Amino acid sequence: MADYELHYWPGIQGRGEFVRLALEATGTPYLDVARDAPSHDGGGEAALIRRLRDPANPTPSFAPPFLVHGDIVIGQTAAILLYLGPRLDLAGRNEREALWAHQLQLTIADAVAEAHDTHHPISVLLYYEDQKDTALLRAKDFREHRVPKYLGWFEEVLQRNPAGDTHLVGERLSYADLSLFQLVEGLRHAFPKSAARALADTPAVVKLHDNVRRRQRIRDYLHSPRRIGFNEDGIFRRYPELDGE
Amino acid sequence: MADYELHYWPGIQGRGEFVRLALEATGTPYLDVARDAPSHDGGGEAALIRRLRDPANPTPSFAPPFLVHGDIVIGQTAAILLYLGPRLDLAGRNEREALWAHQLQLTIADAVAEAHDTHHPISVLLYYEDQKDTALLRAKDFREHRVPKYLGWFEEVLQRNPAGDTHLVGERLSYADLSLFQLVEGLRHAFPKSAARALADTPAVVKLHDNVRRRQRIRDYLHSPRRIGFNEDGIFRRYPELDGE
Repeated sequence: MADYELHYWPGIQGRGEFVRLALEATGTPYLDVARDAPSHDGGGEAALIRRLRDPANPTPSFAPPFLVHGDIVIGQTAAILLYLGPRLDLAGRNEREALWAHQLQLTIADAVAEAHDTHHPISVLLYYEDQKDTALLRAKDFREHRVPKYLGWFEEVLQRNPAGDTHLVGERLSYADLSLFQLVEGLRHAFPKSAARALADTPAVVKLHDNVRRRQRIRDYLHSPRRIGFNEDGIFRRYPELDGE
Repeated sequence: MADYELHYWPGIQGRGEFVRLALEATGTPYLDVARDAPSHDGGGEAALIRRLRDPANPTPSFAPPFLVHGDIVIGQTAAILLYLGPRLDLAGRNEREALWAHQLQLTIADAVAEAHDTHHPISVLLYYEDQKDTALLRAKDFREHRVPKYLGWFEEVLQRNPAGDTHLVGERLSYADLSLFQLVEGLRHAFPKSAARALADTPAVVKLHDNVRRRQRIRDYLHSPRRIGFNEDGIFRRYPELDGE
């Protein structure tokens, strides 16, 4: 049986994908609870909800994803990666590099939250169609100002890495690299035109993305049924009107 | 000379306040660079900007706040507290409690980002007045759904703490307690009516807030000129129209 249990919504990549990538890139066995356990056996999304609301859990999560490892339950994507990082050898060589990987992850999380808010700028309880006028305005700001600012900052980070511009942290793969790969994937899906424009100015970010995609375990994962496709329930949604001219 | 240098905008509490509270609650000497160093000596906001853009820094921050400690530079509020936590004895007794404190902090950070977006739902580059119609809608969702959900979750966390409902993590003060205090302060300032309604259902959160406020070092700090008042440049702004009926 797998040591690690990932609890996340079964139909989307979402924030759970950052955890999946860390587990997949290292060949770590895990149970993707809401997807792997059949619902007629009490698994599926019901299992996730049951665990999320488990009154006996002294460390309840505000929302999925959360990771169960033995009797530890950890929520918040970045905290999950903070925990997994040293265990999967994805957090650099020492405390300083682990902290830097985490800081990078938190900035990726900020970018992801902003990407989400382009289609839900008013409320997660409303449909996109009911906040579309505002979404058009927020998405314009995101693609014109925020995407270039975030990607430009990651480019700068890569350029400044004393160990070279291949990785964000030192000279080895970290979860921050995997997460930046996913951010680029998501931006290219949701905002193909504006992502292409911004990425034209960030060659090291593009190279990092391509290197991650080329890793054997990541390739295998991306071609497997375990990789959920982008869709209009997730964080990165392709609404052409939000990508501008 | 102080070991810790906090770099943050000099005119607002903002995200820097979560770091200030950890330092103040423990009587830790620190330099609040943009405020303590006189601008005619090359200090002030110019010193912050210079350091933020320092091309020799291999770990640049995306934005303030950032902490300088020796030759370490750490950005992202939650990462700063992750670093300071064990050093100031504000992160529980072991790895598990430290991780839990961090998970709580990340959830507080999410609530803070949402509080900010009530007055800037479209773009940080536009004035409030230019996005006020949308702000009214986003603030309604925030005060009716998000504030009760966040505060209710923290109440649940306190109720479930096996060591009692006085602290979020175990039986001692952690930076998560200090940050929840600040979140309550901010919500009460920005949304006095709706915060009062939500807090009526979360007595343990109110008690925690009051206990933090009663601590001698926190009292001294809050009455000192080092505590910046809430204002209309910060995250928590009192625009009465955003507080509803």
